[in-house]
Amino acid sequence: MVLFLTPQSARDPRRALALQVLSAALDAADPAQAIRRLIFRSDDTLWVDGTAYDLAHCRRVIVIGGGKAGASMASAMEDLLEDRITAGWVNVKYGYTEPTDLITIHQAGHPVPDAQAVSGTQSMISLLRDITADDLVICLISGGGSALMSLPVPGISLEELQTLTDLLLRSGAPIEAINAVRKHLSRISGGQLARLAYPARVITLILSDVVGSPLDVIASGPTVPDPTTYAHALAVIERYGLGEQVPGAIRQHLRRGVSGSVDETPKLGDPEFANVHNLIIADNARAAQAAVMQAESLGFHTLLLSTYIEGEAREVAKVLAALSKEIATVGRPVARPACLILGGETTVTVRGSGRGGRNQELALAAALAIEGQESVMIASLATDGTDGPTDAAGGLVDGTTITRGRELGLSARAALDNNDAYPYLAAAGDLLMTGPTNTNVNDLMAVFVFDDVALA
Amino acid sequence: MVLFLTPQSARDPRRALALQVLSAALDAADPAQAIRRLIFRSDDTLWVDGTAYDLAHCRRVIVIGGGKAGASMASAMEDLLEDRITAGWVNVKYGYTEPTDLITIHQAGHPVPDAQAVSGTQSMISLLRDITADDLVICLISGGGSALMSLPVPGISLEELQTLTDLLLRSGAPIEAINAVRKHLSRISGGQLARLAYPARVITLILSDVVGSPLDVIASGPTVPDPTTYAHALAVIERYGLGEQVPGAIRQHLRRGVSGSVDETPKLGDPEFANVHNLIIADNARAAQAAVMQAESLGFHTLLLSTYIEGEAREVAKVLAALSKEIATVGRPVARPACLILGGETTVTVRGSGRGGRNQELALAAALAIEGQESVMIASLATDGTDGPTDAAGGLVDGTTITRGRELGLSARAALDNNDAYPYLAAAGDLLMTGPTNTNVNDLMAVFVFDDVALA
Repeated sequence: MVLFLTPQSARDPRRALALQVLSAALDAADPAQAIRRLIFRSDDTLWVDGTAYDLAHCRRVIVIGGGKAGASMASAMEDLLEDRITAGWVNVKYGYTEPTDLITIHQAGHPVPDAQAVSGTQSMISLLRDITADDLVICLISGGGSALMSLPVPGISLEELQTLTDLLLRSGAPIEAINAVRKHLSRISGGQLARLAYPARVITLILSDVVGSPLDVIASGPTVPDPTTYAHALAVIERYGLGEQVPGAIRQHLRRGVSGSVDETPKLGDPEFANVHNLIIADNARAAQAAVMQAESLGFHTLLLSTYIEGEAREVAKVLAALSKEIATVGRPVARPACLILGGETTVTVRGSGRGGRNQELALAAALAIEGQESVMIASLATDGTDGPTDAAGGLVDGTTITRGRELGLSARAALDNNDAYPYLAAAGDLLMTGPTNTNVNDLMAVFVFDDVALA
Repeated sequence: MVLFLTPQSARDPRRALALQVLSAALDAADPAQAIRRLIFRSDDTLWVDGTAYDLAHCRRVIVIGGGKAGASMASAMEDLLEDRITAGWVNVKYGYTEPTDLITIHQAGHPVPDAQAVSGTQSMISLLRDITADDLVICLISGGGSALMSLPVPGISLEELQTLTDLLLRSGAPIEAINAVRKHLSRISGGQLARLAYPARVITLILSDVVGSPLDVIASGPTVPDPTTYAHALAVIERYGLGEQVPGAIRQHLRRGVSGSVDETPKLGDPEFANVHNLIIADNARAAQAAVMQAESLGFHTLLLSTYIEGEAREVAKVLAALSKEIATVGRPVARPACLILGGETTVTVRGSGRGGRNQELALAAALAIEGQESVMIASLATDGTDGPTDAAGGLVDGTTITRGRELGLSARAALDNNDAYPYLAAAGDLLMTGPTNTNVNDLMAVFVFDDVALA
């Protein structure tokens, strides 16, 4: 993955170091690269993160899955398994496609599921008909999988599911709560795909876009034991005040679930999980670790502080600036040259009418907080390459950003007040541009404090 | 210093450990204790942080100073020097007094100076009349010293100085900018007290309430070379749009300063600083370090992350929670049992009508972010013992705070929305109460992540 900067500030050699660190993180987050790193094939043996699967005695190899990174993951699996693939079907978001030979890439709606999502999911599970213990099912899961692998339970229509999805997404409920409801209206989610694939061996490769990478939450955990129940699902609907707006058929189904007259999702210890191997191939923490390793190899003293960062972008920026000041003045908690890495996802309370995204806003606010500090550089990067509704992935600012902006007649304070970071950072030459990255492992933030002497 | 908690949650032995850590920080911040730690007297030798002063050949010992901690510092110097003190005068804020024998404690107005501040400062500098190289001047400086040691230059009245001070304090300008102006209207600030004390030897003991402890900014640096100029002072007035509101005599004085027709404040390298020994006896960083050392001696793995923390209290809380989650889940950047220490001063954008302070608000927001995490405890403490307009110093919350509040019928979210942390934390038993601490080194924050097993 190559990161570009707008030209005027690319001259600074320290920026090249910062970009190397961020690029390493994007490489680690790339699902196709991750598959090549974690999975090897040696003749008839498939090594998956240390576990051997014997392809010689495999009757069928079926590749299924869903999510925004599905096409890239499917293509990587084709390169690895070639003609050993019997059949394959992966649902992706409209436009998120790339050419494949054996695996059908099927485009559908996201974040609210549509008829294409449902018909695609039906086609996908039809591949699991007559499944046996001699078969191998490879399941490719990435962000967006909850909607892209939609198959409502009998008695609930697509329209009702759409209404509910829309309500949940606007409710402010966290993804764990949203998915507790979705799992109990689906024939796929919450471990039910494992039930459909039983008794085959199942390898699920997961690209995580959820902070902390909880297996049961990412794409609603189709092959993962479900810790939530019908009672949890009903409680979410009540807690977020959705009661009357939720279609009657959905409320009725959840109540029947609580009373035990419809089946629960499969739970930890259930037999359908005995042959399931869930493997996270990339997530924010792995990307952050890759950034740390790259920074160390470049001579930085490093610290990975947290991969759970959340909060208002411009306030998080102040904390990052505070960390940089401690290093710059007293070399604490690490000595210069220092690189702190953080991950997570911030938010922006939009008050203005400008252009930007959470990472650009964080970068601009950080630039204001480190004005004049020659040794400090702060980056914030959306790993999917798209920060807010812009073509930039984030920003990389330093102690001269505000001065450079002022020389151009720009007010950083006014830009921040108007949520208008994009034009400011573009003019200052401090945008991060990556183009599409084929992945999404949330955001990464980096704080660099350079020595006054050049790095070796 | 003893910290108290409201009774219902004092049962948890882990809280006792957290309180020991915070108490150690308050002990380190106490100016009288700091003076006893840093300054020793052995017969006729006064040892000040490693430098020896010969009292035997000292003609006079004069103690002067100003600031909110002045009385406590004066009392400690009396204990140390006893009858070697020739005369002394220290200005303090109304009510911030305590009994002394030889040093006059004079009460005056703060944050806007009053006639008592001016008359007290005149009395103070009258002690420096006929000063010689055989005299020793001990200057006791703490927060509030800019206003409490006020003596306007000729041609500027107290009323004009009051108008300006009020304008500056409401302008949103940082303390560095405010003090650049005040220094150029004063006969004391910006190193001018060193000029008045010349050629005596001067020991200035400083309790810092400014983040980062810049010597020239604390109490407007009366014995410190001034890096700012009349031009800086005028620029501040323009930048914060105060131009027309500033009294004409003040604008005229600053303009005369720029043109060189009145003296500049003394600068680095000027002879009046040759005999001056400025010593910070306590500040946020030293208090934070004491907390870290106490935590280490209790068996915690520790990290002092930054003493420059600023930002909206409830957003900083989310970052602290993110740090605790990384430790709780993967033991990064330090293993459990862990204690992270941070210092600085957060802010609260008041939107509600409740009772609280920035530290209580941070604690309540942190409680929401760590709900259910049994191993995590987060504290935020105003080191002066007074957080906002309340009798609490801050809050100490854990993964059960929200549950305990809910059991009492309280909504933490509603309390936070209304800036009403005090009654919530009081009911939950999670307030920190210290009473007056005789010091102010801003705020301290601590993140504790306990092991599942008890600490040794």
